[in-house]
Amino acid sequence: MKQSLGPKILAQPTPAWVIGSYDQTGAPNVMTAAWCGVCCSKPPCLTVSIQTPRHSFAAIMERKAFTVNIASAHQAAEVDYFGMVSGKNVDKFQTTGMTPVRGEMVDAPYIEEFPLIVECKVVAVHDLGVHTQFVGQIMDVKADPSVLDDKGMPDMSKISPFVFTPGNRAYYGIGAYLGQGFDLGKAFMNT
Amino acid sequence: MKQSLGPKILAQPTPAWVIGSYDQTGAPNVMTAAWCGVCCSKPPCLTVSIQTPRHSFAAIMERKAFTVNIASAHQAAEVDYFGMVSGKNVDKFQTTGMTPVRGEMVDAPYIEEFPLIVECKVVAVHDLGVHTQFVGQIMDVKADPSVLDDKGMPDMSKISPFVFTPGNRAYYGIGAYLGQGFDLGKAFMNT
Repeated sequence: MKQSLGPKILAQPTPAWVIGSYDQTGAPNVMTAAWCGVCCSKPPCLTVSIQTPRHSFAAIMERKAFTVNIASAHQAAEVDYFGMVSGKNVDKFQTTGMTPVRGEMVDAPYIEEFPLIVECKVVAVHDLGVHTQFVGQIMDVKADPSVLDDKGMPDMSKISPFVFTPGNRAYYGIGAYLGQGFDLGKAFMNT
Repeated sequence: MKQSLGPKILAQPTPAWVIGSYDQTGAPNVMTAAWCGVCCSKPPCLTVSIQTPRHSFAAIMERKAFTVNIASAHQAAEVDYFGMVSGKNVDKFQTTGMTPVRGEMVDAPYIEEFPLIVECKVVAVHDLGVHTQFVGQIMDVKADPSVLDDKGMPDMSKISPFVFTPGNRAYYGIGAYLGQGFDLGKAFMNT
């Protein structure tokens, strides 16, 4: 028998992605977003939800572009910080010593020190309530060569990404390898 | 210097949520979705993207309701299986021995054996390409009492959820606790 907890955001876990954009003065800025995820295979798209008053909101509305910057576990403090202060008041690249690099495919900056980058152009904007959802078409993915496996694909053990858990609002690393998708489930086939 | 991998879905990690619905015959069905996430704080909403030909697509379009069923790591084989076969052809509850329970707040079934359940009513539908995105307003969250902490909130170490990593298409458990959100980042404040 389940216990009801009410209509709260307790879905688990979420990403903790860092969203890069150029603000209205042309300065590179980043913010952290957990209300995000992949949303379409073709065209390849992901979504990021941002509240209207955020400094990044106006920036992304204007240039219709953003980057998703995926950190390693050892960069969790930087990721958390990027969600605590506003780019209106502080240069987050300067305070953390991170390096902004101009995107190659879109008009937005990415973080050189993060291992995995997704460059997105905005293809849809949905007003959902206090958050507005940006649908970003993936124009390119960039990775540090050091995190690629021998097939040239991102190696999770090298990237060591992490997640956020709403409710207790904590970060957790990626843990044990449990198995392959479209393979583990064969245990129930032909039963 | 980053290496370009092209416009691929390599954003990491994603959830591996199981979506419950009643099909057009009234039978309970479940499917696995990784293209999903939280999308709005108020009203509390999450999104799940599903391809049009999927058995669950017509079901959710008709009843405008679904559940999100969040598994523990020891249930990864069931989760994977739910994404490998269609409810058109097989009763996935029967083959896995799982128990469907009628949702309390929405017209959709949930899985009794999974520790965390989110009941959602569809409030928006966005056609994005091969995937259609359902925005579901969270009407209730239900948890096994065994996974709650002493404040009555979900305890991540007890739920032990897991993630999917596009690219290598593998499942990984949740790993080490890295710290609290809105706290770790204080390391960069007043610097």
